[in-house]
Amino acid sequence: MTKTKNIILYFFLLLTINLQGQTGEHPNLFLTKTDVTLIKQNLGNVQLFDKSYKALKYDIDIEIKKPIDVPIPKDPAGGYTHYRHKQNYKIMFGAGILWQISGEKKYAEFVKNMLLKYAKIYPKLPLHPVTKSYARGKLFWQQLNEAVWLVYTSIAYDCIYNYLSEKERNTIEKQLLFPYADFLSIKNPKVFNRIHNHGVWAVAAVGMTGFATGNKELIKRAFDGIGKARGEAGFYVQINKLFSPQGYYTEGPYYERYALTPYILFAQAVNNNEPEKHIFEYRDSVLQKAVRTTLQLTNQEGKFFPFNDAIKEMSLYTESMVNAVDIVYTQSPYNKELLSIVKQQNKVIVSGAGLKAAIDLQNNKAKPFNRESLQINDGNLGKQGAIGILRTSDNKNNITVLMKYASQGLGHGHFDRLSIMMYNNGKEILPDYGAVRYVNILYKEGGRYLPENKSWAKQTIAHNTIVIDSSSNFGGNYKIANKYHAKSIFFDAKIDKIQLMSAKETNAYKGVNLQRTIALINDTNIFKHPVLIDVFKILSDTSAHAIDLPYYYKGQFMHSSIDYKPQTTNKTQLGNKSGYQHLWINAIGQCSDTTFKFIFMNNNKFYSLTSNIAGNNKIYFVQTGAADPNFNLRCENGLIFHLNKIKNYVFANTIECFGFHNPASEITGNLSTSVKTTNVIFYNEEYCIIKITKSDNKNVYLAITDNESKTQHIVNTKQGKFEWQGMYHLFY
Amino acid sequence: MTKTKNIILYFFLLLTINLQGQTGEHPNLFLTKTDVTLIKQNLGNVQLFDKSYKALKYDIDIEIKKPIDVPIPKDPAGGYTHYRHKQNYKIMFGAGILWQISGEKKYAEFVKNMLLKYAKIYPKLPLHPVTKSYARGKLFWQQLNEAVWLVYTSIAYDCIYNYLSEKERNTIEKQLLFPYADFLSIKNPKVFNRIHNHGVWAVAAVGMTGFATGNKELIKRAFDGIGKARGEAGFYVQINKLFSPQGYYTEGPYYERYALTPYILFAQAVNNNEPEKHIFEYRDSVLQKAVRTTLQLTNQEGKFFPFNDAIKEMSLYTESMVNAVDIVYTQSPYNKELLSIVKQQNKVIVSGAGLKAAIDLQNNKAKPFNRESLQINDGNLGKQGAIGILRTSDNKNNITVLMKYASQGLGHGHFDRLSIMMYNNGKEILPDYGAVRYVNILYKEGGRYLPENKSWAKQTIAHNTIVIDSSSNFGGNYKIANKYHAKSIFFDAKIDKIQLMSAKETNAYKGVNLQRTIALINDTNIFKHPVLIDVFKILSDTSAHAIDLPYYYKGQFMHSSIDYKPQTTNKTQLGNKSGYQHLWINAIGQCSDTTFKFIFMNNNKFYSLTSNIAGNNKIYFVQTGAADPNFNLRCENGLIFHLNKIKNYVFANTIECFGFHNPASEITGNLSTSVKTTNVIFYNEEYCIIKITKSDNKNVYLAITDNESKTQHIVNTKQGKFEWQGMYHLFY
Repeated sequence: MTKTKNIILYFFLLLTINLQGQTGEHPNLFLTKTDVTLIKQNLGNVQLFDKSYKALKYDIDIEIKKPIDVPIPKDPAGGYTHYRHKQNYKIMFGAGILWQISGEKKYAEFVKNMLLKYAKIYPKLPLHPVTKSYARGKLFWQQLNEAVWLVYTSIAYDCIYNYLSEKERNTIEKQLLFPYADFLSIKNPKVFNRIHNHGVWAVAAVGMTGFATGNKELIKRAFDGIGKARGEAGFYVQINKLFSPQGYYTEGPYYERYALTPYILFAQAVNNNEPEKHIFEYRDSVLQKAVRTTLQLTNQEGKFFPFNDAIKEMSLYTESMVNAVDIVYTQSPYNKELLSIVKQQNKVIVSGAGLKAAIDLQNNKAKPFNRESLQINDGNLGKQGAIGILRTSDNKNNITVLMKYASQGLGHGHFDRLSIMMYNNGKEILPDYGAVRYVNILYKEGGRYLPENKSWAKQTIAHNTIVIDSSSNFGGNYKIANKYHAKSIFFDAKIDKIQLMSAKETNAYKGVNLQRTIALINDTNIFKHPVLIDVFKILSDTSAHAIDLPYYYKGQFMHSSIDYKPQTTNKTQLGNKSGYQHLWINAIGQCSDTTFKFIFMNNNKFYSLTSNIAGNNKIYFVQTGAADPNFNLRCENGLIFHLNKIKNYVFANTIECFGFHNPASEITGNLSTSVKTTNVIFYNEEYCIIKITKSDNKNVYLAITDNESKTQHIVNTKQGKFEWQGMYHLFY
Repeated sequence: MTKTKNIILYFFLLLTINLQGQTGEHPNLFLTKTDVTLIKQNLGNVQLFDKSYKALKYDIDIEIKKPIDVPIPKDPAGGYTHYRHKQNYKIMFGAGILWQISGEKKYAEFVKNMLLKYAKIYPKLPLHPVTKSYARGKLFWQQLNEAVWLVYTSIAYDCIYNYLSEKERNTIEKQLLFPYADFLSIKNPKVFNRIHNHGVWAVAAVGMTGFATGNKELIKRAFDGIGKARGEAGFYVQINKLFSPQGYYTEGPYYERYALTPYILFAQAVNNNEPEKHIFEYRDSVLQKAVRTTLQLTNQEGKFFPFNDAIKEMSLYTESMVNAVDIVYTQSPYNKELLSIVKQQNKVIVSGAGLKAAIDLQNNKAKPFNRESLQINDGNLGKQGAIGILRTSDNKNNITVLMKYASQGLGHGHFDRLSIMMYNNGKEILPDYGAVRYVNILYKEGGRYLPENKSWAKQTIAHNTIVIDSSSNFGGNYKIANKYHAKSIFFDAKIDKIQLMSAKETNAYKGVNLQRTIALINDTNIFKHPVLIDVFKILSDTSAHAIDLPYYYKGQFMHSSIDYKPQTTNKTQLGNKSGYQHLWINAIGQCSDTTFKFIFMNNNKFYSLTSNIAGNNKIYFVQTGAADPNFNLRCENGLIFHLNKIKNYVFANTIECFGFHNPASEITGNLSTSVKTTNVIFYNEEYCIIKITKSDNKNVYLAITDNESKTQHIVNTKQGKFEWQGMYHLFY
């Protein structure tokens, strides 16, 4: 039979087989009977699926040859027993799938024997001996891992259900699965009911175990929570409360990609067993939107934007995103752009969803996935600020600027209101530090968050945003920070060449109003090169403040227009608290009444930062790494604009990307910049007008307001009268 | 006509056309008449050639539309006039070739008009106003660039020779080419006669101008030098003296790839005009060997090993290597492995040689290019030490260790006798700093070598080798260093799994004998993971010395087995001279009588450095960047083992590559190492025996001698009698 014929058969089968699984039928969680039939029919004809299937088989075949080890739990994350129990559920999950597809008994036997071993030790297991978590598990030091184990193990159990004798099922359910699910739910209602990714994992684990065993009580717990009124706990509530209407999860994309897994896996199980719930369409298809939003929160290299606690290497290539993309594509196969992501991921999950995605990709149905300029609202009603992303689409410079004007982002949030990060072609230009953690690396406190995560990464000074009086937003108090969010003033990315966003934060510092406006101009009629304009307005009620504005940059120092005093023989800290203690002073620059220009090179391009900072102010050239006795921090460089005792100020800074250096030919060129000086020519509570003088001495003016009530604006300045409509205008 | 037919035609044409050019015929330097005919016949049929041709045409078509600018020289490297004159010769070179192939007059016109503009300004040009070079040019600040200009311009002139009227030729030759060639030769005999890459460029420029114009006097100068006896100057002497028999150029690969261009281009011109000289076969085909040796001196990513003054980004993708590989392949087309390099370079030169390489590649004639373990001897007789390279060939770990035990490497040499560098899969593990320079980047002193190149990069402490009494090799005196070279003791890479090299340096420090032995073991019967054993023996005549042994490493600090005192609030310099002033002390570790273990992570693998340093010694954890007021240095990390006042010592250190971290899955594993402790159990002047105890408590012993006169060795130690044959033995 030819490949095409075989693939066509797929669709016939879809029509002839009863598409909806029956409750009580097995498998019916990750795989359905229909899936298994289709996969068997198509094996050998769908390249990407075959490759993924072979990879799974290769890995599992190695693992199931080893003796089964179910050790008594002992180690923290990064240690052996932690690793072993994680490996065990992965192997059971894979072996369960392979049993269904290949029909080879060795896989079912392996899962059975391992489950029986767990059933033997589980009843007597005490709480895990490591006491570092607020919610200890039994197999693992924290209940989060405990729940993940059951999510995958319930799938494995579902896969071999029909292989087991009733006696075996009895043993496994009564001695392992039910008490395990009870531990995660009725024994720990606080975690189970918690509106948090830990809660979602527990809910999914318990619900999936319910479907796998036909235990309706467990399914009920998953939807209703423990001892709570309707609408206060359970899966629907987790969907309602943890996502914004666009599917944004407030902790940020690093945690969203992780949190997505239990949502998507459980939703698939719900859909297989109770299709009448239309769970993937629930709340205007928010689970599907969540996957697409998470993908929009990646840079050109597919890595997640690392705001809040985030490991910078994490990307859309991770297993949880392969899982989410395949399943969501299969739920709404009109989203052909998801197939482009499948292609990049270059693997699919071994399930009906993975098969569907692989077949459609093979039939050239993929459409390009465009990373767009967009504002992603935060809060379950979408009213708690947003993440704003501006992106140029340009062959040479694919610049992305992200501003965070969202809510705090729960416990993993950073105190970084109105902070920005900038990328070009997927490379960091103005980076966000991310988290201080080496996940699962034993040498670094077992892979947990390190002390510097709190003392540095979460602090405001670690981010590209304003710090008032050397103190973090909300005094670094998470409970207070969690009550407030920043606010979008305007977001306009309709015209690709001139995109703007503006946001306000009025709670981070008492009596201080902060408004930041970012314009991304990529129009050779205005500037020869792409220019980011960054206008940061600080208005204080009464007292004067010390103001710091850091720009961390990746790349090599090239040029500073002002004299500075370098610390060449003895290096001191910038401060002693709020993150300042982690910064070495490399040099101190003393401003005079001139424009400040700083040039650095990154990835063979040049970036010129031009600032209006003038008068008797200081610029600190800093480097991370102080107060770091265990060498947990990366060494990164930054500039900090420091104003001492000032009530109101407007920073008008630009960053121009220009020039090139070719290391193979050693040629450098195109070094003349467009921006000569930047100045604020007018500001008050309502308005702000900045002037950028170009190297040809022509001027560009940017007028900004935060007054949404008026449509027509007139401002008289010493440099003339400015008239415009709307929230901003660029005069050029 | 089909592609195949057309390509076959290539060979018929080769048979029917007179293969040897005639003196006086044009073109006959970079292209010959035969080449042009063949190219015209094959255009459109050879993918890589067509692509390269189109790329050249695209670039040149843009350039020749712009107004011709031949500015009065003014700027240093990195400045406009410097850039302009460099661009001009490149455009003339390209346009000359395009005229020959396309026959479109615009190309010939452009070259003609530009040459006439140069002819107008040249007679009155004074020496270049920038006075930073020992040998100033007229168009450029240094004669090196001046010569390069003429090499390419002579080719352009040759290409349009027949297009020009006799009057035009007269003007160009008498007002530009001849006085220009005179300036490089009879007006500056010192540079012209100098056995140095500057001399080679001048010789090639003058000789090629001779061939292009039919001026026999210029050709004679190129072969004989100016006012020197036979065998003292000129092209043959440059070939004899600058290369070792294997084609190694003593400055190192960064300069070799650059120096190769005039050799190869001039040799090709000689071959076209005076084929009876068999210049490519001269001295046992040393020019061909030079190209292959330079390629061996690249890492897995194709970047040149950056010892001596070298820019680390420079790679085999550079134009000069494309040029060299294509031309040498065409001279000896049995070297099919060069076609693999052509494939990686993914472009060819637009000439007969490029066509030949592209056709053979298209016909699938490429053979794999293997980077081998080999010893590359230095010195024009191959007797001045060597560069030793050991390489494992392994899918997971492709480890390369390079040791430099060669001569000084002329003025671009570093004081780094017996230094090593280590790579894994093309990534730096133990790096060499390279040069402190940003070539052609105006912001960094016009792209010249920066002061820190001398104060840091050249100093011994900047390298992974022994420093005695905090002073660089030979007191940092280049003239003395240039007199001496290190010496190979043995080099054995016959068995892939156990490779060793050993070398001695007895002149770098008065009264101190240094011997370093590197073993690269990649045999799971011996160690679970790849292990590098590094045995450094220091024997002093009389007095005790302070000894420093640095290991610079790339990656993140994971673990140190000893306590250390970090500098967390105030960071100080390690010293005040000989490069020590550029090191910050991050922490000071105090050894006790135990094994020292240090673990770092690089590119998701782990490396464990185990050392026998014990007793009352110090370990400095250092970072580059002190005494660097202009931020010219990169921030890199290292450990320095410091012994105070000791006469003799043997370091027995191992570096084991183990474990993995997968950032997409966040899994870490395989973290148990093989090496537990390392100890020296015996040493004297002749012998050294070290013991490595493994985690299973079994021992591996490495016995080393430098006594070549004996074949059988017996050493009695407290731990037993060791008997072996040959220069070393591994007991396991």
